[in-house]
Parts: sequence; structure tokens; C-alpha cells
Amino acid sequence: MKFCSECAHPVVQQIPPDDNRPRYVCTHCGTIHYQNPKMVIGSIPLWQEGGETRVLLCRRAIEPRYGYWTLPAGFMENNETTSDAAARETEEEAGANIRLQQLFAMLNVPHVHQVHMFYLADLLDLNYAAGVESLDVRLFSEAEIPWEEIAFPTITQTLRLLFEDLARIRNGEGDFRFHTRDITRPMRQS
Amino acid sequence: MKFCSECAHPVVQQIPPDDNRPRYVCTHCGTIHYQNPKMVIGSIPLWQEGGETRVLLCRRAIEPRYGYWTLPAGFMENNETTSDAAARETEEEAGANIRLQQLFAMLNVPHVHQVHMFYLADLLDLNYAAGVESLDVRLFSEAEIPWEEIAFPTITQTLRLLFEDLARIRNGEGDFRFHTRDITRPMRQS
Repeated sequence: MKFCSECAHPVVQQIPPDDNRPRYVCTHCGTIHYQNPKMVIGSIPLWQEGGETRVLLCRRAIEPRYGYWTLPAGFMENNETTSDAAARETEEEAGANIRLQQLFAMLNVPHVHQVHMFYLADLLDLNYAAGVESLDVRLFSEAEIPWEEIAFPTITQTLRLLFEDLARIRNGEGDFRFHTRDITRPMRQS
Repeated sequence: MKFCSECAHPVVQQIPPDDNRPRYVCTHCGTIHYQNPKMVIGSIPLWQEGGETRVLLCRRAIEPRYGYWTLPAGFMENNETTSDAAARETEEEAGANIRLQQLFAMLNVPHVHQVHMFYLADLLDLNYAAGVESLDVRLFSEAEIPWEEIAFPTITQTLRLLFEDLARIRNGEGDFRFHTRDITRPMRQS
């Protein structure tokens, strides 16, 4: 940020009165320009067949991490709820018909000022199709997950938690749980 | 937003290519200025005494809702996690020594572009004190909660869920649960 979005004067970084952090401040009109973390929301579309659970992943057609696999997810928009965002991103990126279920994981990524959330979802049919931001959309069993080609650590972590919960459920030990994690290593691996 | 924060030219509202929503766009330098929901994070500091659970509330010394009661909470900052934010706001607004526990509630407030989250917390001692944004800080039993003087619907909802869970726990029916709610009525009641 270089200029005030209200009056176009150059901004400076300073700690406002009654505050303890440097902010972008306009010394002309007095506006303080706060910057806050963003939410990235997605779903975990599941398909049950032959006693096996498969999960729908999208291959990214955009940077960052072009060509890598991810869960359908994206930035939450104003005027929507977290579940609205999960449903919209799943439609946009995977063209998938889903029934959204409960929130499964919330992962903090403080070094990129993001919080990622993933909802469980039942895939209702196999009529999915790559949206403009995806090269491909495909179902994967646990054994088929391309672990070395997953786009982001939050996706790897969420998929690991998913298959741990599925193993526990297969053993008759309860249901899906809600998980929270903090990701502290760098976001991009390459 | 009236001017581009990168080059100071006036912005216009238009739908960028490959997008489906109007954004503030700078036709001079090409920057698209996305606007996204913010997270408001807080804690539910609990004190056990004589078989009763009391919760710590702060009386607001700032607008909006000056003089009304709230849980300690505020906007999440860049470079912190959701639990960092809950701990910081509890220290700043209530001067309270707490041990943070699990996430208890996430409430969407789409008409003000916010998501509110509240962590359970154990109050470790009674050495709390109002910070600069609070007029008073006090412990309340369920019977003492000033329901008509609660600052925001998300606080009312979270306190109701808290006392429902506490009643269930007293009856031997499990532990605290994680709750999600969407608040669709206007944020301010007065």
C-alpha cells in the first residue's frame, strides 16, 4: 500500500494512538488502513463405492502451484457464509454436485495471513467437470493420492486427518471430528 | 474505496475477466482490489466455584455498542493464529490470565462481512482488570447474565450455546461441542 484509498495522498507506516502495531496511516485525511488475514474455504467431496471412500481433487490451472493437486477451495467473499464459500468454490473449480456436511478442519497459516477451512461433503453424482481454474478433476482412493504433487501443506494435512478419521470410523471408533492445526513451515515447497 | 492504493488513480467498479463479481479495479495500473470478510476472535473465560460456572464479560468503552457487555474479542491481526488472537484480545480487553482451550463456536455474520470465533478458556486467577477498551470486567453466573445489555447477537448466541452445553455436561451427557451458526438478522439491535 502506497496511497490512501480514500483521498489519494501517500500513506506512512506508524503506530496510531491507543494501538501497538504499525499501520498504514493517511496523515492527510486521518484514515487508518487496517490489514487482516483472509479466509480460504473449501470442501472435501467424498464418494463411497465398493466399501472404499474416494476424495475429489482438482489439478490447478493457475499459479501458485500450477499443475499440482488441491481440494476445491478459494478466498471467501463478502456477503457469504463459510459454507456458502465452500459450496461456491466446489461448483466453480470442480463443477461437482455435493451435499455439504460439517466443518472438518481449520488450519492457520499465519506467515501468509490466511486461515483455511474445509467442510466434509457428499458427492451426489459423478457429473463433475474441471472449471476454468482447474486442468483436471479426479477421484482418488487413499492409495492413489499423489502426495508428492499436492499443492499446499494445508491440503496435505487435511487429507491426512481425513484418512486417519476414516480408519478410526472403519474400526467402529466414533465419527468424524473437528480438527484445528497451525501450519508454521513455508507455504510453498518448491 | 475511491483511489488505487498502488498508483493513486481513481478506481472503478467492474467485473474483471475470468471473474463474476464487481471489484474495485484500477484502469491505470491494472490492480484489482479484492475485499474479503474479516475474522473477529475471542475467548470465553470460565471460573468454577462452589459447583457453579461463571463467565467473564467486558463492558465496552468504545463504539459500537458503548456500555454493553461482550466477551473479550477483536479483529484478528496478520502474522497471528486464531488462538494467538483469542489470547491477545483477552489480555488486552480483560487483563485476564487464562489457559486457552478448544474452539467452541464459529458464527457467520455475512451482512457485515465477518466471521466470529470463540475459544473456551480457563480463568487462572481473579486478577483481571479492564483494558483501555473496557469500562468494567466482571464474572457472571447464568442467572446474572445481563441478556438485554449484550453488545452483539453473536455474543448472545455463544453464551446460550455455552449454558446449554454446561447443562448437558452437568447431566453427564458428554463434553463441550464445537458449534457453527449463521446470524442473519441485523447486527445491532438498538
